[in-house]
Amino acid sequence: VKLVAKNLPIATGDVVVAVLCERDATRLDLHPSDRIQLEYGRKKIVATVDVMQHFNGVHGKYQKHVLRCGQVGLFAEAQEKLGVLSGAQVTIKMAKKPVSIQYILKKLRGERLSREEIHAIITDIAHDSLSAIEMTYFVAGSYLHELSMREVKDLTDAMVSSGDVLRLKSRIVVDKHCIGGVAANRTSPIVVSILAAAGLTVPKTSSRSITSAAGTADTLEVLFPVTLSLSQMKNVIKKTGACLVWGGSMSLAPADDKIIRVEYPVSLDPTGQLLASIMAKKKSVSATHVLIDIPVGKGAKITNKKHALELKNKFEALGKMLKMKVEAVLTDGSQPIGNGIGPSLEARDVLWTLKGSSEGSLLLRNKSLIMAASLLELTGKAKKGKGLFIAEELLDSGKAYEKFVQIMKAQGGKEINPSQIRLARKKHHVLASKSGKIVHIDNKVMNKIARIAGAPHDQEAGVYLYYHKGSRVKRGERLFTVYSDSKERLQYALDVCKKMRGIEIT
Amino acid sequence: VKLVAKNLPIATGDVVVAVLCERDATRLDLHPSDRIQLEYGRKKIVATVDVMQHFNGVHGKYQKHVLRCGQVGLFAEAQEKLGVLSGAQVTIKMAKKPVSIQYILKKLRGERLSREEIHAIITDIAHDSLSAIEMTYFVAGSYLHELSMREVKDLTDAMVSSGDVLRLKSRIVVDKHCIGGVAANRTSPIVVSILAAAGLTVPKTSSRSITSAAGTADTLEVLFPVTLSLSQMKNVIKKTGACLVWGGSMSLAPADDKIIRVEYPVSLDPTGQLLASIMAKKKSVSATHVLIDIPVGKGAKITNKKHALELKNKFEALGKMLKMKVEAVLTDGSQPIGNGIGPSLEARDVLWTLKGSSEGSLLLRNKSLIMAASLLELTGKAKKGKGLFIAEELLDSGKAYEKFVQIMKAQGGKEINPSQIRLARKKHHVLASKSGKIVHIDNKVMNKIARIAGAPHDQEAGVYLYYHKGSRVKRGERLFTVYSDSKERLQYALDVCKKMRGIEIT
Repeated sequence: VKLVAKNLPIATGDVVVAVLCERDATRLDLHPSDRIQLEYGRKKIVATVDVMQHFNGVHGKYQKHVLRCGQVGLFAEAQEKLGVLSGAQVTIKMAKKPVSIQYILKKLRGERLSREEIHAIITDIAHDSLSAIEMTYFVAGSYLHELSMREVKDLTDAMVSSGDVLRLKSRIVVDKHCIGGVAANRTSPIVVSILAAAGLTVPKTSSRSITSAAGTADTLEVLFPVTLSLSQMKNVIKKTGACLVWGGSMSLAPADDKIIRVEYPVSLDPTGQLLASIMAKKKSVSATHVLIDIPVGKGAKITNKKHALELKNKFEALGKMLKMKVEAVLTDGSQPIGNGIGPSLEARDVLWTLKGSSEGSLLLRNKSLIMAASLLELTGKAKKGKGLFIAEELLDSGKAYEKFVQIMKAQGGKEINPSQIRLARKKHHVLASKSGKIVHIDNKVMNKIARIAGAPHDQEAGVYLYYHKGSRVKRGERLFTVYSDSKERLQYALDVCKKMRGIEIT
Repeated sequence: VKLVAKNLPIATGDVVVAVLCERDATRLDLHPSDRIQLEYGRKKIVATVDVMQHFNGVHGKYQKHVLRCGQVGLFAEAQEKLGVLSGAQVTIKMAKKPVSIQYILKKLRGERLSREEIHAIITDIAHDSLSAIEMTYFVAGSYLHELSMREVKDLTDAMVSSGDVLRLKSRIVVDKHCIGGVAANRTSPIVVSILAAAGLTVPKTSSRSITSAAGTADTLEVLFPVTLSLSQMKNVIKKTGACLVWGGSMSLAPADDKIIRVEYPVSLDPTGQLLASIMAKKKSVSATHVLIDIPVGKGAKITNKKHALELKNKFEALGKMLKMKVEAVLTDGSQPIGNGIGPSLEARDVLWTLKGSSEGSLLLRNKSLIMAASLLELTGKAKKGKGLFIAEELLDSGKAYEKFVQIMKAQGGKEINPSQIRLARKKHHVLASKSGKIVHIDNKVMNKIARIAGAPHDQEAGVYLYYHKGSRVKRGERLFTVYSDSKERLQYALDVCKKMRGIEIT
C-alpha cells in the first residue's frame, strides 16, 4: 500500500512513530502500537503505529488539519531516518512486533531469560523499537521477579554492546561511582585528580542532575567544557591520563537512559537494573578497577544499613562476574558533604579543597582522600594501609591540583581563582531558631531549596551551609545562605525553608 | 509562577498534558510525568508535565517554533478543561502525584489492596489522572500477583462507580456476554430478541471489533443506528423491553477501556482484569441475571478446557459476590459460528436466522437457542428443561423477529430484506485443494482474511463460508468466497489465504 508522507512537527525523543487515519489503519488491519515497515527509495524503517482519531473538542488525538486519510504522518524520528519530504509517496508494509516482546512477557511470567533474550530486549530498546508501555512491562517484570546475578551480568553486557565502547591501552583503568542521593557530594574531581596524579588512567564520565541541585557534570561545567565526543575524550585521556566529562553526550550504554525514563514516574529502581545500569557505564569505558560509593543514612537513598550491605555484596559479586575489581564502600549519607549546594557553589568548594585553602570543605576533603586511598590500594599503586598517606601527599603537595588544571585545560578551560566564581546576587541568610546541636541536615530538603532557588539551570543559585552535623549553634546565628538570581524564586525557596525542616537542632 | 498559554494541535485522547520548556521546568523543579496545577480565572486543572527539548534533527520532542520558554503548551484535553485561548496568562503551581501511584506500587510489591485503594486507582484512571506508564505498572502488578476474588469484586465495583449507571425498574434484568475470539459469533441479536419476546428486560450493550472482522455493534450498524446516549437507550428499553446498542458511546465503566489500551501492546489480559471488566459492564446496566459464553477449542482465545472451567467458576463466584445470578457456559470455539464473516455478511445471517429462512445459519440458530434457553431457565421464565422448547417457539413463531424489528425501529432503523443487504462487488472463490473432511476452520485466520479484505470498516467486505467442520468436500469445490471493494485488498487477502491455512481438510 502506498500513502503520502506528511511530516508532523512532533517527536517522541526516541520511538519512531507513524500516524495513520482510522480508515487506513482498519484496512491494513493495524492498531496503535502495531509495527509497520515504511519504504522510501532504498530506505526501509520500522515504525510504531499511532492511529489518528479526528477530534472536535477532545475525542481523539490530532486536529483535523493535521492528517487526512491517504496520508501517513511522520514524527521527527521517522522523517530523519527515512529522509522524506511531505508529499512523497511511501510504501507501507506490515512488520512483526519485535520478538523481544515475547521475552518481556516471559520475564513477566517469572521465567529466567537467556543471554540471547536479554540481548534482544536491550538491542530493541537501544534502537528505539520498543514503546514506553512495552519497556514498562520489562521493568515491572524485573522488579517483581528479581533478576538473578547471571541475568544482571547478561543485562550489563547487553547494555555495553548496545552502545559505543571507549578502548584504552592501559592495563589498569580506574573509575568510581556514587549511587546518589547526597547533596554536594562532589568527590569525583578531587579523587580523579589524585589518582591521575599518581599515574593512573581515569576516564571519568559523570551525569547531570536529575533530582539533585547539581550533578558533577553541572558543577564542572562552571569551570570548563564537559560535553565532549568520544574521540575528544580519548585525546584528553592521552594527554593527561584522565578526563572529567559529561557521560550523556556520548552513546555509552544508551539503553540504560531509556529504561530510567520509564522508572521515573513511579520512582521504581529494581536492584538488578541499578546494578547493570551503573556497571555498564563503567564497563563501556573499559574500567578494570571500580569503587562504588553507597551513602547510607537518614535522608539518603538507602536508609537501612543491612540493605546497603546487601547492595555492596551484589556490586562486588557482579564485578567478579564481569572480571572487574570492584570495591563498594558504605559512606555517611545523612547530610550534605560539601558546604555549597548548586553548580557554582560546589565548583568553588572543589577548587578550594584541591588548592588546600582553609575555605575548603573538610568533609569533602576527607571523603575524597578515603576514596582515592581505596582505589590506590585496590590497583596496587599503594600497599595496604599506605593509600591514605599517598593520597594526602598528592593532594597537599599540589600535584592533584596541577593534574586538575591539566585536565581542565585539555578540555578547553582555563584556570580560575575560586573566589572569582560568581554567585547569584540575591541572597537571604537563614538563622538558627534556637540554640543547640545540629543533629540532622536533610539532603532532600536542601536539594529542594537549592533547586527552587534556580540550581542547576542557574549555575549561580544554590545554598551555602555554614555548619554540618554535630556543630553547636546559637539562636540567631547563620545556618545557611540561599542564593538566587530571581526575587520570586528566592522567596519561593524561603517558603520551602519554612515549610520543610532542612536542619534539625536539639 | 505565571506562563503564557499556547494551545497545541495535539491530543492524547485522555491524559491532560501541559508542556514546559526545559529552563522553566528546571526552575520549577519539574520533570516529565510530574503534575502541575494550572489556574485560569476560576478554573483549576491538574496536568501531567512534558518537558520540551528543542530539536535540530532529532534531539528532542518538539520543533523550535512549537513552544518558547515562558509559554506553557496545552494539549487539547487541557485546552478544553481550562477553556483558555493562546496568549492568556495561566498560573502554574506544583501538584502532588496522585496517591493512587503508591497503591499501584503496593500491588507491584505483591500486597493486597483495600477497597478504598482500588477505588482510588480506578477513579484516577477514569479521570485521566494516570499516565499510560503508570497504568501499565498496575496491569503488570495485577498480572504478576493475581488479584484475589475480593480484590476483583472491589475492582468491579470501582469500575462501575467510575462511570454512569443505567437504572431500570424491572426486578429482573438480563444480559449476556461472550469473552470473544470466535468469528461470526453473532448470537446477541437473536438471544436478545427471544428473551425480550418472552417479556424480559435486556439492556444489551455490545462492542465494536478490536481484532476480529466485526463486533456485534459493527454488524448491527449495517441495519440500524447503534450509537445512542444513555437516555435514548433507556427510552428504547421502555418501548421494547430491550435494546441493541454500542457500549462505547456511553460512559459505562469507562476506566475499563483505558486499561485495555495498555494491555493491547503485549496482548496481556490478567484474569482479574478480564473478570472485572466484563462484570462491570454488566453491573453498570443493572443486570441481575447474566450468561457468560466461554468458547473453548483450537483457534479460540481459550484452548484448554481446564482453564475454561476455572474461568467459569471464577465468573460464577464473582457473580455471587456481586449479588448477581451468573451462569457461564463452555461452548465450541474451534470454528466460526455463522456463515458470513464481516458486518454486512453477519447482519444478513442474523436476519435470515431470525426470519427462519433456509439460508440462515444452523450453528448460529442452535447456539442462540441454547443460550436463550439457559437465560429463560436462569430467570425462572422457563422451568428446568423447558427453556429450549420455549426459546424455539418464540423464534419459530416469528415473535423474536417481530421484537427485533421493534427494537430496530425504536433505535431509528427500518425493516430491510436480508437479500437486499449489499455486499462488496469484487469477490473471489477459494476452492478445496483436495477432497476430504474439514477438520478445522481457524478463527484467527478467517478473521484476518476478512479484515484484510476491508472488514469491519468496509461493512460490505468479508468472507462467506459454504461449509463448517465435519463436512466432506470434493477437490475444486468452493470452500468460501472473499468479498472486497478494492482489487488490491482482495489480492492481499488472497495472499493471506495462500500463506495461512484457514481450513484444514484430511
